[in-house]
Amino acid sequence: MEKKLEQLKAILAEVSDLETTAALLEWDAQVNMPPGGAKGRSYQMGTIQKLAHVKFTSVEVGRLLDELQPYAEGLDPDSDNARLVRVTRRHYERQTRVPSEMVEEFAQLTTLGYHAWEKARAENDFPHFQPILEKIIDNRRRYAELFAPYEHVYDPLLDIYEPGMKTREVQAIFNALRPQQVALVQAISQKPQVDDSFLHLEYDGQAQWDFGVEVISRFGYDWKRGRQDKSVHPFTISIGIDDVRITTRITPDFLNTALFGTMHEAGHALYESGIDQALQRTPLAGAASLGVHESQSRLWENLVGRSLPFWEYFYPRLQAAFPGQLGRVNLETFYKGINKVAPSLIRVEADEATYNLHIMLRLELEIAIMEGSLAVKDLPEAWNARMQEYLGLTPPDDAQGVLQDIHWSNGYFGYFSTYALGNLISVQVWERINAEIPDLQDQIRSGEFSTLLTWLRNNIHRHGAKFEPQELVQRVTGSKIDSAPYVRYLQGKFGAIYGL
Amino acid sequence: MEKKLEQLKAILAEVSDLETTAALLEWDAQVNMPPGGAKGRSYQMGTIQKLAHVKFTSVEVGRLLDELQPYAEGLDPDSDNARLVRVTRRHYERQTRVPSEMVEEFAQLTTLGYHAWEKARAENDFPHFQPILEKIIDNRRRYAELFAPYEHVYDPLLDIYEPGMKTREVQAIFNALRPQQVALVQAISQKPQVDDSFLHLEYDGQAQWDFGVEVISRFGYDWKRGRQDKSVHPFTISIGIDDVRITTRITPDFLNTALFGTMHEAGHALYESGIDQALQRTPLAGAASLGVHESQSRLWENLVGRSLPFWEYFYPRLQAAFPGQLGRVNLETFYKGINKVAPSLIRVEADEATYNLHIMLRLELEIAIMEGSLAVKDLPEAWNARMQEYLGLTPPDDAQGVLQDIHWSNGYFGYFSTYALGNLISVQVWERINAEIPDLQDQIRSGEFSTLLTWLRNNIHRHGAKFEPQELVQRVTGSKIDSAPYVRYLQGKFGAIYGL
Repeated sequence: MEKKLEQLKAILAEVSDLETTAALLEWDAQVNMPPGGAKGRSYQMGTIQKLAHVKFTSVEVGRLLDELQPYAEGLDPDSDNARLVRVTRRHYERQTRVPSEMVEEFAQLTTLGYHAWEKARAENDFPHFQPILEKIIDNRRRYAELFAPYEHVYDPLLDIYEPGMKTREVQAIFNALRPQQVALVQAISQKPQVDDSFLHLEYDGQAQWDFGVEVISRFGYDWKRGRQDKSVHPFTISIGIDDVRITTRITPDFLNTALFGTMHEAGHALYESGIDQALQRTPLAGAASLGVHESQSRLWENLVGRSLPFWEYFYPRLQAAFPGQLGRVNLETFYKGINKVAPSLIRVEADEATYNLHIMLRLELEIAIMEGSLAVKDLPEAWNARMQEYLGLTPPDDAQGVLQDIHWSNGYFGYFSTYALGNLISVQVWERINAEIPDLQDQIRSGEFSTLLTWLRNNIHRHGAKFEPQELVQRVTGSKIDSAPYVRYLQGKFGAIYGL
Repeated sequence: MEKKLEQLKAILAEVSDLETTAALLEWDAQVNMPPGGAKGRSYQMGTIQKLAHVKFTSVEVGRLLDELQPYAEGLDPDSDNARLVRVTRRHYERQTRVPSEMVEEFAQLTTLGYHAWEKARAENDFPHFQPILEKIIDNRRRYAELFAPYEHVYDPLLDIYEPGMKTREVQAIFNALRPQQVALVQAISQKPQVDDSFLHLEYDGQAQWDFGVEVISRFGYDWKRGRQDKSVHPFTISIGIDDVRITTRITPDFLNTALFGTMHEAGHALYESGIDQALQRTPLAGAASLGVHESQSRLWENLVGRSLPFWEYFYPRLQAAFPGQLGRVNLETFYKGINKVAPSLIRVEADEATYNLHIMLRLELEIAIMEGSLAVKDLPEAWNARMQEYLGLTPPDDAQGVLQDIHWSNGYFGYFSTYALGNLISVQVWERINAEIPDLQDQIRSGEFSTLLTWLRNNIHRHGAKFEPQELVQRVTGSKIDSAPYVRYLQGKFGAIYGL
């Protein structure tokens, strides 16, 4: 049996090599590749991904998984090997169940969809996007049918990004959260607004870069096992546990873009690079889910990076880097400025207090569409109605409304909720950490993050994808994903800032 | 038959995708990869190369080649398809003839060999390198035996780098060249030496970079289809015809390193990026041989870049970039300085007039070793004797003698001659170009290179690997590889500089 396990691991190692190689192809395309390389790159990517798929979905992998099943059941269920067999089987069953024609159709539709969406957004023309979006949704519905019987037609889509999560669970979480978050935003809107004009001055690009580097170096980002570059859309990518790279984007006249973007990506990277070396080159060498991934980026970006203790340490340094812009702005003013709450139309620009409302809106529309209770042609109207209800705003056009995000054109149905789940998980974990490390805030106040990082490594990072998200959150915090800590956090933080 | 050809091309396209992906893995390792990535990168590279090898040497490829043979024989022998079948068969027969155990042994021996060589060179300890070098040579001898019967035991090694070339031919070429080149160097040594002290001043690194970029941009290097980075060892790498990247190295107190190194790599890159798009993703999308490759780099580096007309255009620009260092150095002095001839111990630092002598020495030793007429233990003595004979120098130690080059530790027997063949071919081609473009020197004098590049593209680059090197040189120049033009060139150029 040990030998069969080794056989399985040998195949999985090659699949992993192909996948991390594809990651390098992707990183290079976004960071270095000259434009002429695009066509060749699409061939390379296609070939590498196809070989990975063919190798992983081979009859041999299925046979080894079957033969190893009784052996795995006899192991400690939390052991690496038991989890390896379990997670590999989950991936195998998902990938082998989808006919290659459907995968190809999806690839073609989303390529067309991306171009149609780009044009529709540029020209504020939703009807141009509608027909291809209908086809993409039809493809996703047929995808979901492959996994019947299901509790909810949206479950198989959610499961791609949050293994094991059910639509019912996500709805319950968000139904509890929504009214409280709407009420908070409304309460804030009654109060005088804070000043953040100093964030919108000219900030030297190199100095922004250097400050970000200083911050994430203190976080514990290891430059021997990663690097940072610039790209149009910031991202984190793992080319292996010991080569996790991040990118950032610098806006010359807005400090927040690079400052919080760099911390966000470093949070993702600390997760990927903290995975146990023993899981290298297996399907366990990844995140538990996108939601858990986002919890790590949000923890460093918001719970650390937008906190007062953090800036008690770093603000004098930031002022020294930008004396002209910030020399006369005191710490309290700066802290309030970076935490300004203001309902806005665009998700990616939203603050902590309003962000989740953007997500819930999308999730509700996705579920309604998959259920068949909302037609694609009625999406703009439904979008605008919810924007008014949750944020008190109506988009002036669809480009700033239903067409703003790339996700649907790419067929990423089921993805959005991971952003909000990440926010919730981050605070649940944060409460736990603060209970276990009573002087954490003092450590942060003195620029010390190693105890925090060690805690995250031991409790979350090292496990990689061994545990499903609900299971992991339960193990770490003692309860499943829950919105109550997040509401407490928002009310505490913004109550103080806005004097509620 | 057309369908079988398409089947073959589909497999070859995937093999090509794997190979260009491996090129990216290599480029990234040398340019970007953080040190932590090294272990994972060796796994990725191993997996990608193995998959390329397995796919290319499959029974299916052999069967398709057999079935396509009569069809290919009926085609125009110079057509892409006829050449595709022929070149693919050549690669297939070579790769399938070598048992995988021998390939693995070679990989292991050369890994050990590299480390032993590094230590031996650092500690000037040839006996430390000797035992592993003997094993590497034994592996290469057994490799050659796989291709028996052969005319000469060295032929199968030479054929790896110069398809179709025979040891007999190379020996004949170099036997004609050697006495004339030795005589030239001796004649120069009787004359007063030129001054090149101004090349060894401090030159700002960014200004060196910028000047190199200006020069190769005028050559026609297309930044939309390539890029330049810094690396410890400069190299050119093709990740596809439309993504050919170069690297350079800057020495702060020696102008030549980056200046001529950049032109050299750009010459390689212009070749790779000039290959006919129709050959993309086939075994024809590469150079005819390493010698032909080197002819292109040497042409731009030496025949263009070390010529007087070139500097008539560029020297005022270089002076403007470095007024402190070159403001008082006139064109003639500069031209003579960059063409200084002085026998030296180290090949990579050798000038145009002495370079080939370093190569001939190595080739003769390699052939003697493969023939069995020279024992590995006697290499240092044989090396030093020839250095004295050809260049009038005796290395003070083996580190500056027999241990200076990495090639033997890597098992690259057969490689060295390609450097000298490249020099010879470059001048043969150069004579032809100047006959066909009578005002070429005037064009160069006005910084105009497009006619030259177009000629090279039409006559050499676009063919890729369709023709074997001797065949290509014959087509382009009307004769096979020949040393006479090179000798004429050296005598003319250095006769004028040194007043012979």
